[in-house]
Amino acid sequence: MPGRIDCSFYKERTFMKLAMDEAKKAAELGEIPIGAVLVAGDLVVKGHNTVIKDSDPTAHAEIVVIREAAKRLGNYRLIGSSLYVTLEPCIMCVGAIVHARISRLIFGAFDSRYGAVGSMVKAFDMDFNHRPEIISGVFAEESSLLLSKFFKALR
Amino acid sequence: MPGRIDCSFYKERTFMKLAMDEAKKAAELGEIPIGAVLVAGDLVVKGHNTVIKDSDPTAHAEIVVIREAAKRLGNYRLIGSSLYVTLEPCIMCVGAIVHARISRLIFGAFDSRYGAVGSMVKAFDMDFNHRPEIISGVFAEESSLLLSKFFKALR
Repeated sequence: MPGRIDCSFYKERTFMKLAMDEAKKAAELGEIPIGAVLVAGDLVVKGHNTVIKDSDPTAHAEIVVIREAAKRLGNYRLIGSSLYVTLEPCIMCVGAIVHARISRLIFGAFDSRYGAVGSMVKAFDMDFNHRPEIISGVFAEESSLLLSKFFKALR
Repeated sequence: MPGRIDCSFYKERTFMKLAMDEAKKAAELGEIPIGAVLVAGDLVVKGHNTVIKDSDPTAHAEIVVIREAAKRLGNYRLIGSSLYVTLEPCIMCVGAIVHARISRLIFGAFDSRYGAVGSMVKAFDMDFNHRPEIISGVFAEESSLLLSKFFKALR
């Protein structure tokens, strides 16, 4: 509506900008450039893909920030939290989001190959006992561009 | 065939017995009793659920042994490895198994609620670039019994 300011829109962009900065850090380290931010109350945890550096096939950006936030809060449930990630989560990360009871998922670009929110599969439509609110497309173009540049440079 | 000895059957039972011992350890610690063993060449990594102890929603038995084995081998790919787990993996763990390129998955009981190998969903039938060999039902009854006893005691 003209004249109205949607404050949540600015909040989403602020945190996704931080996630994009993390994705860029990952690229500089030779990791697939995906970044994430977990916001739980006053706690803001930033992270990126560390699969190669940590020799950890599970160290996707989402898992990195979920594990760190849960550890810092001393609770394996992150009820009320928001997860920002620059790319549509895969099936593993969707599972982790469900287990952690994350309340809101905001992601950037769709991953046409392995995205599990709607691309390869709609995993949140499965018979889970939890489903977060989902927002997609925040900084999608920037995220896609960063990824395609990264893979182009690899070839 | 009568008179024949299937050696692989004994191997499966030996490693699944170790996984069952891990599941029992988990129960003693108040964690959901699920255990896992990862065999990669000479390396044998044992582990169990540590979700509560580690405040880590991703610390399912499968993820615990995958992360440990990958770290010890200095490689995020566990090609040629076998994963033994006492319960059918969930969607998160199926994703991790794919990412780690685990060659063989041997599990005990089916998880009618959240099992992602055939119960809730057939996740390995999705369009992944990897699919392990799958064996189910090893020590299934013992695994189910341990879980039902645990949840009965909780109530």
